[in-house]
Amino acid sequence: MKISARNVLKGTVVSVEKGATTAHVKIEVAPGQVVTAAITNESVDALKLANGAQAYAVVKASDVMVAVD
Amino acid sequence: MKISARNVLKGTVVSVEKGATTAHVKIEVAPGQVVTAAITNESVDALKLANGAQAYAVVKASDVMVAVD
Amino acid sequence: MKISARNVLKGTVVSVEKGATTAHVKIEVAPGQVVTAAITNESVDALKLANGAQAYAVVKASDVMVAVD
Amino acid sequence: MKISARNVLKGTVVSVEKGATTAHVKIEVAPGQVVTAAITNESVDALKLANGAQAYAVVKASDVMVAVD
Amino acid sequence: MKISARNVLKGTVVSVEKGATTAHVKIEVAPGQVVTAAITNESVDALKLANGAQAYAVVKASDVMVAVD
Amino acid sequence: MKISARNVLKGTVVSVEKGATTAHVKIEVAPGQVVTAAITNESVDALKLANGAQAYAVVKASDVMVAVD
Repeated sequence: MKISARNVLKGTVVSVEKGATTAHVKIEVAPGQVVTAAITNESVDALKLANGAQAYAVVKASDVMVAVD
Repeated sequence: MKISARNVLKGTVVSVEKGATTAHVKIEVAPGQVVTAAITNESVDALKLANGAQAYAVVKASDVMVAVD
Repeated sequence: MKISARNVLKGTVVSVEKGATTAHVKIEVAPGQVVTAAITNESVDALKLANGAQAYAVVKASDVMVAVD
Repeated sequence: MKISARNVLKGTVVSVEKGATTAHVKIEVAPGQVVTAAITNESVDALKLANGAQAYAVVKASDVMVAVD
Repeated sequence: MKISARNVLKGTVVSVEKGATTAHVKIEVAPGQVVTAAITNESVDALKLANGAQAYAVVKASDVMVAVD
Repeated sequence: MKISARNVLKGTVVSVEKGATTAHVKIEVAPGQVVTAAITNESVDALKLANGAQAYAVVKASDVMVAVD
């Protein structure tokens, strides 16, 4: 499947924390650069996400903001 | 200002393309890894975004999806 | 690629309207039920979206609201 | 109330799962086509959502992505 | 229609700027406090939005971030 | 830090409710006008959010919808 989302960052899962319904998954996409995703527990199971797994952090361009110092 | 968004990736602006109302800004956050943001033209002006500027791509954790091959 | 987004609705592209930077793509996901997506022009080109193409409307669960009469 | 969100899919609630703060509500919008919404527990109560209720899945066009095989 | 979105701020439309596909609508929700919405041109027409109109800015709780100085 | 998000509403935290992973924070941005944010527990801690704290509700323009009666 090829998706319209412009941002697909490859990395390694470094943390999976399930909540009651919402899980937090952390993916290291570059050395020292970790992206946090809040997804459903259901998706964690469906994708068999676990520490060490190769995965992508995917973000639609309209969900990215820009900041400056 | 300190923000709740969990993902704040530092980088350099490599492209600014203004549309009629919506602009696309590309930020290189790691060598060869470029993040695209769709923001208002108004914000591009307010933040004086231009090629070469230091900037951050900011994404709320609930806007990050995860994918696997 | 398998994605965490819980909503992946299969359908047929029935309209593609490019703007200056943002395009509107309409996908019929059931008879008479059309979903509108606002994506980048860049994605329209990358996915070669055109009328009649088979495509999926993809939505993260946290972006779905519920309403009642 | 009439809303700007372009996607308002009518259906029937087929599942409501409350978490600690976030609930997952599933709405069947066409035979066999179920949409999952992650909303606050507070909203589930305010809208009195329960299995069998008529409801709409509402999505802003800018939150819809497109994918192809 | 009653919606799950927790934030529904009543106000007055003070600006409507249509782009090629995306419009920016500004709503004054309190004296001097203006909220900007980026919606489709299509929605501006469907809702007949114009300066002076009474309208609501609607935001899903999961799309609200928090910042501190 | 200066952010592209067009909506930054100053107010006072009036409620913080942590869930298993997701917290709900309510900010009064004008007398009687309360905005609800769903953010990570992690952010609540990082920003030391508590009742009475001065804070901003921050929303990207593309996440704001418009409704009319």
